[in-house]
Amino acid sequence: MKNDLHRLMAEHELDAIWVVGPAMHNPPMVYLTGGGHITQGDLILKRGEKGVLFHGPMERDEAARTGLITRSYSNYPFAELLKEANQNRFRASVLRLKRMLEDLNLTQGRIMLYGQYDAGVAFALFDALQKELPGLTVLGDVENQVLQQAMLTKDREEVDRIRRVGEKTVEVIANTADFLTSQKVRGDVLVDSEGKPVTVGRVKRLINLWLAERDLENPEGTIFAIGRDAGVPHSSGNAQDVIKTGQTIVFDIFPCEAGGGYFFDITRTWCIGHAPEAVEKVYEQVLSVFHTVSAEVRIHGHFRDLQRRTCELFEAMGHPTVLTQPQTEVGYVHSLGHGVGLNIHEKPLSGLMAAPEDDVLLPGSVITIEPGLYYPEQGMGVRLENTLYLSQDGTVETLANYPLDLVLELKG
Amino acid sequence: MKNDLHRLMAEHELDAIWVVGPAMHNPPMVYLTGGGHITQGDLILKRGEKGVLFHGPMERDEAARTGLITRSYSNYPFAELLKEANQNRFRASVLRLKRMLEDLNLTQGRIMLYGQYDAGVAFALFDALQKELPGLTVLGDVENQVLQQAMLTKDREEVDRIRRVGEKTVEVIANTADFLTSQKVRGDVLVDSEGKPVTVGRVKRLINLWLAERDLENPEGTIFAIGRDAGVPHSSGNAQDVIKTGQTIVFDIFPCEAGGGYFFDITRTWCIGHAPEAVEKVYEQVLSVFHTVSAEVRIHGHFRDLQRRTCELFEAMGHPTVLTQPQTEVGYVHSLGHGVGLNIHEKPLSGLMAAPEDDVLLPGSVITIEPGLYYPEQGMGVRLENTLYLSQDGTVETLANYPLDLVLELKG
Repeated sequence: MKNDLHRLMAEHELDAIWVVGPAMHNPPMVYLTGGGHITQGDLILKRGEKGVLFHGPMERDEAARTGLITRSYSNYPFAELLKEANQNRFRASVLRLKRMLEDLNLTQGRIMLYGQYDAGVAFALFDALQKELPGLTVLGDVENQVLQQAMLTKDREEVDRIRRVGEKTVEVIANTADFLTSQKVRGDVLVDSEGKPVTVGRVKRLINLWLAERDLENPEGTIFAIGRDAGVPHSSGNAQDVIKTGQTIVFDIFPCEAGGGYFFDITRTWCIGHAPEAVEKVYEQVLSVFHTVSAEVRIHGHFRDLQRRTCELFEAMGHPTVLTQPQTEVGYVHSLGHGVGLNIHEKPLSGLMAAPEDDVLLPGSVITIEPGLYYPEQGMGVRLENTLYLSQDGTVETLANYPLDLVLELKG
Repeated sequence: MKNDLHRLMAEHELDAIWVVGPAMHNPPMVYLTGGGHITQGDLILKRGEKGVLFHGPMERDEAARTGLITRSYSNYPFAELLKEANQNRFRASVLRLKRMLEDLNLTQGRIMLYGQYDAGVAFALFDALQKELPGLTVLGDVENQVLQQAMLTKDREEVDRIRRVGEKTVEVIANTADFLTSQKVRGDVLVDSEGKPVTVGRVKRLINLWLAERDLENPEGTIFAIGRDAGVPHSSGNAQDVIKTGQTIVFDIFPCEAGGGYFFDITRTWCIGHAPEAVEKVYEQVLSVFHTVSAEVRIHGHFRDLQRRTCELFEAMGHPTVLTQPQTEVGYVHSLGHGVGLNIHEKPLSGLMAAPEDDVLLPGSVITIEPGLYYPEQGMGVRLENTLYLSQDGTVETLANYPLDLVLELKG
C-alpha cells in the first residue's frame, strides 16, 4: 500500500524516487498524484518527506489539486540555462534537472526512476545527469521491488474503485450478450433486422459506446475474437469478421477509469445458438479447472503453485501445457493470472519463471484467474477469467461476476 | 515522411533505430507498425533494411499483420538465459537483448532508442547492454532530429486520417453546442428539463459518448473550462462546476483514432446567452489576431516568427505577452501552436525558445494556430484554434472547420 512506500525505500536504501511524464495513463504518476490533466511533470519523493511535483506554469491548478508540494518549471528559466550551457539545448535540459535536485538538497544518493517516458530521451538525460552529479546513482526498478511492491496491496478505496469498474464492465458484457442474442440468423451468420451481417467491428464499437457511457475507457482495446482467432490468446479479433453461430468467441474486456485509472479484467467464452461437441468438451474442462483453481486461491500461497496445479490438471486431461512444453502454441499456453490495478498487468505474477518474491498472494492483492485452452487449427479457444480480491481478513472475493455459460440462446 | 527515415538515419550516422514498448498509444511504434494489439515489442530497423519486430508468441497474428519481419521472443527461452546469467533475472533480460542484436548482426554501431517505456527500466537495461557490447552506442533523440523529423511531414494517407478525425470532432462540437443551447436557464445557471443544473462533468461525459460513437478516444482528456478556469490555459475544467450564462467557456478538444492513432486539435470559446462587454472586447482581439496570423502562415516560414508576430499584435493592443514578460500568467501566456500527428504535440514547434531547425514550416506539416488571452482573476479566457495542413503545392488548408462565434444563443 501507499504507506509502505517509505519503508520499501529504506529497505532498498533509496534516498528518493523520481517519477517522470504525464499524470494520465502513467501508473506511477497516477498513483502518487491522483491523476489529472498534467501533460508533463517531475515528481520527486524523498524518503520520509512529502513529495514535490514540478509542473508547467499553465498546469498550476491541476498540480495544486494533487495536494503535493508544487514547483513550477518557470523557476528554471530556459533562457538562463541555455546561456550557462553555451546554447547547448540538451545540456540546458540536464542543468535544469540538476537545479531541481539542488533545490531539494538531493545532489547525491540513490534515486529510483519511474514513469512512462521516451526510453531514449530518458536514457540520455539521466546518463548525463549522473555524469553531472558524481555522487548520484540513478536506478531502474528492474525487479519491481519498490513502487510496484507498494501497489501490489490495495487499500479499501482502491478496491472499491476496482469493484466499481467491475460492476460497470459486467453491465457492458450484459449489453453485449443482449445485443448478440437479439439478432437474426441467415445460414450460420448473425444478421441484423435489415439482413446485414453483424461484424466484430460493429460489436466493438458498441462496447466502446457502452464503456464511454459509464466513464470507462479501454486504452488497451478489447479482445472479441471468433473461431481461429479465439484460439490465439492475444488476438484481438478482426473488425471485418462476421459472427457465426456455433463458433467460440473469446470476449476479454479490461477497461479502466477514464483518464487512466484503475482497471478491471474479465473473460467469458460464448457460442451463439449452439456449441459443437468438441467445444462443449473443452469448455467443460476449462470450467472445471477454473472452479478448482479459484477455490484453491490462498492468502500467502504462491501464485506459481496455482499455475503448476492448472498445468497438471490440464495435462491429466490430455492437453499440452507450458509446464512440460514451454513453447507450445496449443493447449494451455499462458500463465494463470496477474495482479490488476493502475496497470492491467502488475504484481503478483503467476508465471513459472516468476521470481519467488513476486508471486506471493498477499492480503490486499487483486488478481485474475484465467485458465484457457487453445486450438487455433480446430478454430477454437476457450478462456474464463474473473478478478478476485484477497481481503485483509483472509476471504477471497470475486469483484463483479457474470454467468459463465458457454451458449447464448438467440431470442428470436 | 516515413520514406525520409533512412536518409535521416544516414545524416545522423545511425546504424539502426530501436523502438520499445506496446503498439498502442506509443507513437513511434504505431508509426512503424501501424498499431495493433501488441502489448510489448522491440522493433529494430537497420539502416537501409526492412524492420524486424520481436514480439510475444501469443501476439504472433497481430505482429504478422504489421508486414514487418517478425521474430518471437520464444526464440530466446528465458530459462536458458537465466542459467547463463547464474539466475540473475536482470542480467538474463540484458542477455536476451544482446542475443537479439547478435541475430541481427548488430553488435556494434550507433543505435537510436525510442518508445514509451518505464524510464528507469529503460535506463538500467540499455546502460547494462552498452556495457555488455562495448562497440555499441545507445542514443536518445534528445533534439527530435530523426523519427520526429520524419513524422513532421505527413503523406496523403496521414493527412486524410487527420482530416477525418477533424470532421468527426467538429460533429462532436456541433452536438455539444446543440445540447447546451437546448437547455433552460434559472437565474444565470443552465438547467435541464427537470430543473437540474447542467455540470461540466455531464457535458464531458456526453462528449466522450459522441467521440466513442465515432471510433475516437481522448486519451489526454478534453478541456471544457468555464469562468476563472477558462483563464488558465491547461485547466481542464471542474466536473462539479455548473454552467452559467455570460461566462467564457474554453472548449479545447483533441481526440485521436481509437487505439492511439492520429490526433486532431481545435478550440472554440463560447458564452451562452450573452457575452459581457469585457469578454466581447477580448474575443474580438483574439479573433482578429487569429485571422491575421492564420493568413500569414507561409510554407518555409518560421513558426517562431508567427509567435513573435502574435505577441507584437497583442502587445500593441495593450496585453502582456511572453515576448517581453516570459513569466507572465496573464495576457498571452503560451506559444502559438504545434505540429499534430500521432502525438498531440509534435514538431514543428512555435516557442520563442525553439531550436531554429525545429520551427520551419515544411510542406506536408500539420499545425495548430491557437492564439489566446487569459485573465483568470477577471474570470475569463479566450482561445481560438484550428488545425491547418501545409500542402505539398503550397496551399494552406483548414482541416475541418466550425463557426468561430462567441455567443451561443439559447433556443428556448
